[in-house]
Amino acid sequence: MRTTKKTETVLEPVKIIPLGGLEQIGMNMTAIQYMDEMIVVDCGLAFPGDDMLGIDLVIPDITFLKENQDKILGYVITHGHEDHIGAIPYVLKEINKPIFSTKLTDGLIRGKLAEHEIEDVVERHVVKYGQTVSFGENIKVEFIKVNHSIADACGLAITTPAGVIVHTGDFKIDYTPMFGETTDLTRFGELGKKGVLALLCDSTNVLRPGFTPSEKKVGETFEHIFAENLDNRIIVATFASNVDRVQQIVNTAAKYGRKVVVEGRSMVNVMATAGELGYLNMPQGTWIDIDEMNKYPDNQLVLITTGSQGESMAALSRMAASIHKKVTIKPSDTIVFSSSPIPGNEKAVTKVINELSMKGAKVIIHDTHVSGHACQEEIKLIYSLVKPKYSIPVHGEYRHLMGQAELAADMGINKDNIFILTSGDVLSLTKKSGEIIGKVPAGAVMVDGLGVGDVGNIVLRDRQNLAENGIIIVAMTFEKYTNQLLAGPDIISRGFVYVREAENLLEEAHNIVQDAVWDCVDNGISDWGRIKMIVRDTLSSYLWQNLRRSPMILPIIMEVD
Amino acid sequence: MRTTKKTETVLEPVKIIPLGGLEQIGMNMTAIQYMDEMIVVDCGLAFPGDDMLGIDLVIPDITFLKENQDKILGYVITHGHEDHIGAIPYVLKEINKPIFSTKLTDGLIRGKLAEHEIEDVVERHVVKYGQTVSFGENIKVEFIKVNHSIADACGLAITTPAGVIVHTGDFKIDYTPMFGETTDLTRFGELGKKGVLALLCDSTNVLRPGFTPSEKKVGETFEHIFAENLDNRIIVATFASNVDRVQQIVNTAAKYGRKVVVEGRSMVNVMATAGELGYLNMPQGTWIDIDEMNKYPDNQLVLITTGSQGESMAALSRMAASIHKKVTIKPSDTIVFSSSPIPGNEKAVTKVINELSMKGAKVIIHDTHVSGHACQEEIKLIYSLVKPKYSIPVHGEYRHLMGQAELAADMGINKDNIFILTSGDVLSLTKKSGEIIGKVPAGAVMVDGLGVGDVGNIVLRDRQNLAENGIIIVAMTFEKYTNQLLAGPDIISRGFVYVREAENLLEEAHNIVQDAVWDCVDNGISDWGRIKMIVRDTLSSYLWQNLRRSPMILPIIMEVD
Repeated sequence: MRTTKKTETVLEPVKIIPLGGLEQIGMNMTAIQYMDEMIVVDCGLAFPGDDMLGIDLVIPDITFLKENQDKILGYVITHGHEDHIGAIPYVLKEINKPIFSTKLTDGLIRGKLAEHEIEDVVERHVVKYGQTVSFGENIKVEFIKVNHSIADACGLAITTPAGVIVHTGDFKIDYTPMFGETTDLTRFGELGKKGVLALLCDSTNVLRPGFTPSEKKVGETFEHIFAENLDNRIIVATFASNVDRVQQIVNTAAKYGRKVVVEGRSMVNVMATAGELGYLNMPQGTWIDIDEMNKYPDNQLVLITTGSQGESMAALSRMAASIHKKVTIKPSDTIVFSSSPIPGNEKAVTKVINELSMKGAKVIIHDTHVSGHACQEEIKLIYSLVKPKYSIPVHGEYRHLMGQAELAADMGINKDNIFILTSGDVLSLTKKSGEIIGKVPAGAVMVDGLGVGDVGNIVLRDRQNLAENGIIIVAMTFEKYTNQLLAGPDIISRGFVYVREAENLLEEAHNIVQDAVWDCVDNGISDWGRIKMIVRDTLSSYLWQNLRRSPMILPIIMEVD
Repeated sequence: MRTTKKTETVLEPVKIIPLGGLEQIGMNMTAIQYMDEMIVVDCGLAFPGDDMLGIDLVIPDITFLKENQDKILGYVITHGHEDHIGAIPYVLKEINKPIFSTKLTDGLIRGKLAEHEIEDVVERHVVKYGQTVSFGENIKVEFIKVNHSIADACGLAITTPAGVIVHTGDFKIDYTPMFGETTDLTRFGELGKKGVLALLCDSTNVLRPGFTPSEKKVGETFEHIFAENLDNRIIVATFASNVDRVQQIVNTAAKYGRKVVVEGRSMVNVMATAGELGYLNMPQGTWIDIDEMNKYPDNQLVLITTGSQGESMAALSRMAASIHKKVTIKPSDTIVFSSSPIPGNEKAVTKVINELSMKGAKVIIHDTHVSGHACQEEIKLIYSLVKPKYSIPVHGEYRHLMGQAELAADMGINKDNIFILTSGDVLSLTKKSGEIIGKVPAGAVMVDGLGVGDVGNIVLRDRQNLAENGIIIVAMTFEKYTNQLLAGPDIISRGFVYVREAENLLEEAHNIVQDAVWDCVDNGISDWGRIKMIVRDTLSSYLWQNLRRSPMILPIIMEVD
């Protein structure tokens, strides 16, 4: 008979708490807690879904972080994409703690803080690859080089007494990267050799077999395009943050003696930051202002622009729609989409392509982009190096997380040790066991203009209803004590029908409502709520019967003393 | 010196007038006119674009047809898809002329007419492949067998004194079709040999190289799926109209001893019509009612359902969202998407896939669909057989039409003889020359509920504004002669902010508006229009400054005598 040794110290678990991500793709934020110490990995925003009418952006609900303010020792940021840094200004206004990131990421964060006028009150630290930062007594974070579609991207090794957690961040493995080294496979291997408790690994491309091609591959395509379009003005649309991509366009432009024009606010901003910090090497005199374009013939120009996702207000979309102030598309233009549409943007991108084609321009969309995320074989490579006890797939939709769960199982991870977490789950891990032990408040907070969180589901439901059916307002004035109808009912509609086309119908609707109100008055009904209900019911059944439509109906009663 | 022979008769041109299609993809309708005789080819609807808030469907503007009612001799329909027959009930209510189509197409049209209760007043004629119908003195139409993703699809040979126009309809070339023969290549060749004036050819897949695979290919995939999921309930989502696809599912089901349940209104309707007319061969006792499902174990069931496009109210979407009354998704279910997302639907489809995955079901999306449209090599084959003088690419976005124009030029068509038409263009063709000679009214008419054309751009712009920003109503009552403010201003908002979250702001907004109105009264302003303007300006600048938002502001003034 065996007995457990009682001399063993009690194991304290490390807790992993995603506060965004799965439900709102892109809003990456994860709290890592050991006893009374906590760090926050990434602080991203999401772009609103189709059902979030009028919303500008979405940030994580930080109720849990606010309740644990005293424990938070800092923010650790993996790279400078919006879905990892975009919520920083909003969150830091509430919970101001130091931010740790590499140089380019830091530069982009600084820009965001400056925009929100909190640059001076936030403490930022620039770290280097291989550097380890200590947080409190128990948490250490090492920044590890990874390749991605933005320079200076990091994976993290988070060491706690409960074990080491490896977080890949967004990554791919590029053996011939444009800038710097290949993903630091050796370091991942060393960590694996010493023993890793848990791996949080990027799932975005896990459903794609094989390897993601090198960024250099796109350079070869640019080479062909420039060689084959010697007489044309070349316009390239790509992601503003993909500095390496822009570098390749600049290199090819320089080779072919073309000047570079950068257009679109975010593109100009990122290029300025990247140039300043040494991440973009633009030969003297290459970058010209857009106003100087007319000094050069078409075959000496390359325009690098935003709008690769068909965003309606981006520079390329405005050019396509003939509403760009400085660039007019010509039949002799060659336009390159160096991007692939993010899910949901396909139709918008197609619209811009069609508009450009109608102006006679040549549009090139093939072989002009590679992904910044690892495919199956790369993810397997990371698993084989890191050899984690627990697998926690991150970054991606549910089907992607499921895909990585299957891959992890194939790679020998015990199925019980694979966790697909939803926002707010508290995963508690020790070397002995892993389990979801609770749920903290988590979710999406909508930002509309300057308002943060003042639009919720009721407002969205109203917007949806208004969007689909419009509104009819029925205004009436009653005398307070006598219940006499002094004015109205007047009917005003917006977003409902062309008044000119539906005059008779609106006239009849008015008569029906008027009769209903008079009936109320005749029957001595003096409860305004009841009158409103009768107006709403009468009008809505009339409109449904005659038009099969249900606009929002808003009766307004004013009282005169 | 040569002189032109004066004995030659004057050549009357044939006119080709597209009344939908390019601007509103799907709304296929083309008028073919020779002197005072006209036929209409197809009568389709389009589904509303993202900017057409609340609109149910879109039909062609038929102003031109109405003005030429007396000339119209009939409608000729190529096949039974919504984008070719969907506008029939709306158009026939205005211009009632005989309809000519093959049996299955006719059955589907009959269903539509019955829904709109005009079945009895419309004259329909069923035609067979190879049959020629004469319209008036000068127009003859021959119906030619083509393969497509619905049975009984036709190409057309339209003979006029000016020459023969060949219209492929939507087509592919399937050497091993599920039902009937291969596209009648011989007939296209015979027509080409005799001389064809113009070819209107399907462009949908012109950007794809090679050949579209046979429908049978999908059958092989079903075979694998059924063999590998012997213990699971199998649910297949596909297009309701793809009777051949359903036939293959039924065949595989029968082979594996499974009962078939058909779910989704349009699926049940089409299957009933197809079964009745002999296009769907369902072994006795195979089709069971959805209410009988619980009598059979999972491994004896196949559910064929609508919702392959992620449409929010379709059966599969309701199952995924756990709001379907009769089907509950289980972890042991295998769900097959036998479809590919129509552009614009990608995100909706992904959402449903994720929801199904979260319930633990296995989702299969690969190799489960083939297109119904011809790829490059098939289109080249048609050109090489038909050898038209003029090429008029049809069906597709601008980039597709452009793609076919390039292909046609490669196939030897004179570039001046290739016409990319926009809706309303009048293309006039003789053997000597072709030219766009004018433009007739054409465009999209929006259908919202029972209203046809009563929603236009102003209403849509209001809906867009309401959707993004909501509405604020400012109601006031004035005494008519004294201009005394009797009640209000009251502020009511919908779709703007959570009132609870923004109480102070709304309170302050109210005070500011009240001050503005009182100022008006104090200053003796009695022009209601001016007061409304002041209210609107005051409130909108307050809200922009404090919230960066611009809701619709609607001041309402009531007058009391």
